[in-house]
Amino acid sequence: MASRPALEVENARRTLTDLCRPIRCELAEAERIFRHELRSQFAFVQQLVDHCGDYQGKRLRPALLLLAARACGSVTSAHPVLAAVVEMIHTATLVHDDILDESMVRRHAATVNAEWGTETAVLLGDYLFTHAFHLAASLDSTLACRWIGRATNRVCEGEMHQVHQRGNLDLDESSYFSIIEGKTAELTAVSCRLGAHYAGADEATTEALDRYGRNLGIAFQIADDVLDIWGEERLTGKSLGTDLEKQKLTLPVIRLLETADPATAANARRMLGEARAECRKQLIPLLEQSGTLDYSWQRARWHVKEAIDSLECLRESDSKHALRVLADYTVQRAS
Amino acid sequence: MASRPALEVENARRTLTDLCRPIRCELAEAERIFRHELRSQFAFVQQLVDHCGDYQGKRLRPALLLLAARACGSVTSAHPVLAAVVEMIHTATLVHDDILDESMVRRHAATVNAEWGTETAVLLGDYLFTHAFHLAASLDSTLACRWIGRATNRVCEGEMHQVHQRGNLDLDESSYFSIIEGKTAELTAVSCRLGAHYAGADEATTEALDRYGRNLGIAFQIADDVLDIWGEERLTGKSLGTDLEKQKLTLPVIRLLETADPATAANARRMLGEARAECRKQLIPLLEQSGTLDYSWQRARWHVKEAIDSLECLRESDSKHALRVLADYTVQRAS
Repeated sequence: MASRPALEVENARRTLTDLCRPIRCELAEAERIFRHELRSQFAFVQQLVDHCGDYQGKRLRPALLLLAARACGSVTSAHPVLAAVVEMIHTATLVHDDILDESMVRRHAATVNAEWGTETAVLLGDYLFTHAFHLAASLDSTLACRWIGRATNRVCEGEMHQVHQRGNLDLDESSYFSIIEGKTAELTAVSCRLGAHYAGADEATTEALDRYGRNLGIAFQIADDVLDIWGEERLTGKSLGTDLEKQKLTLPVIRLLETADPATAANARRMLGEARAECRKQLIPLLEQSGTLDYSWQRARWHVKEAIDSLECLRESDSKHALRVLADYTVQRAS
Repeated sequence: MASRPALEVENARRTLTDLCRPIRCELAEAERIFRHELRSQFAFVQQLVDHCGDYQGKRLRPALLLLAARACGSVTSAHPVLAAVVEMIHTATLVHDDILDESMVRRHAATVNAEWGTETAVLLGDYLFTHAFHLAASLDSTLACRWIGRATNRVCEGEMHQVHQRGNLDLDESSYFSIIEGKTAELTAVSCRLGAHYAGADEATTEALDRYGRNLGIAFQIADDVLDIWGEERLTGKSLGTDLEKQKLTLPVIRLLETADPATAANARRMLGEARAECRKQLIPLLEQSGTLDYSWQRARWHVKEAIDSLECLRESDSKHALRVLADYTVQRAS
């Protein structure tokens, strides 16, 4: 599944573009606000901003926010601002994640740390974070700043927890889910929550959309972790295999260590402990034979179903349909 | 001046404590808010927060904010919150600066990057930044988030500009001042501005306090850069000599290169170009003989005077007196 042919990947991308057709004007406005907020008088800073502006590949979070708004009520002038804010926060975490992972490639281009060094990548991430909050503060109330503040606090906590657990070969599933809920699902959840609330949704509907975004985020991260092992850099457009190299345990590996017979588990632990690039290839057949790949997709699909079920409270519409297909897309995609 | 005896340093510290006596309750409240906002359910994150909570040595920015409030009107419940916010932003920049400078020691303790690695330091800085905005968003209006957002945007721009100019031996004074105004003076300026505005000061007074904080910040950074060359780690409690090692040109060196005779300037450029630790010692006699140390203190004192002159619009009070002495302290301190 992970090494699907380029044509299928292209089809999945096209589906995403089609789904976003009803919100294409708002997405374009969000893009304009994003670029306008980040412009700098310093040529060097502007060059960096332009570079990471191109990271906006799927624009998943802005799309979630705007589709949630349309599915719950109507899109207001606050929505493209908020869409730009969540994309800016996401871009900041990408720039800083690439330092943590020592990644060299992102969206088929050099990462900021690879091209300009760690220092610049640290500062550019900070620039993006602080601009996101500056932009969120241009709205009428402090609500968006508070919600986005709380979500990003949890993103950072999840990431710190993950760094601390690196090399811990006893990490269990529950800790794994707590980490990915923080580092990934908080931002997709708050995107949907903001979209719904600013469209005038009541509290129960806003909560339902939060649940949708949270489950979608969890499914998305499981898929990301699976693709880090089985994906192809050519298709995903980013450095892969970093989780195993960094001894960052993800669902397939946790499942293997928990369910394999003692000899296989000991063998897998030895491979992980060595932490060399070749280990990755040695571990892959073990993971495939033990059915952990299937298990991981099954868990991801369970969260997709939870996400889709959360939409029940909404009346049928093109946007609700798009949200359903988007949730499904997280486990169909190959990038 | 830079290698002043420990007794004098101790006296300067005591002066600062005395100056803060009228605001000691508010400083304690700010400290409580700071710790409360950052608490985490994850033991590892809490350990990091406790560690960098101890970085709060001088608490200069909270002191400026609270003294500005008292000098302009009265301290409200918003002020300790804002004082905690500016200290949190400052701490975030310290944690990230130590990555950039590869510093090992801060306030006589190991830096986060030295103790726990770059990844953790990047994430902890992000945690501090996002919590600062989350806390600022607990106030009634978006004003604090907007002002702090704008100031931190400029801090990051100043730092990125500095990183980009590293190794540029033709950096001129005007670029140096533009860098330090961004990276240091923006935060002291916004601290004073917030203190004044939230105490009910009119626009002209708020602007005057911004000017005070900006000039104080510039003087403070010149002093910091001088101490990086002539200070003693024992007294400053942090790694020194990093500017020269990183080919980061500061005022004394810029002045030397601009005013020395061609042979001396060429010699100095050669030493800087080598970028080895020993170069530092070779360059120091050159800097001393050329009078650039005196020149730098003179420029710092000019900004102290500008800062003090900005306070003219305020009626006499203990707090106004304290602000005057604080400005003077930036060029008296040895840490």
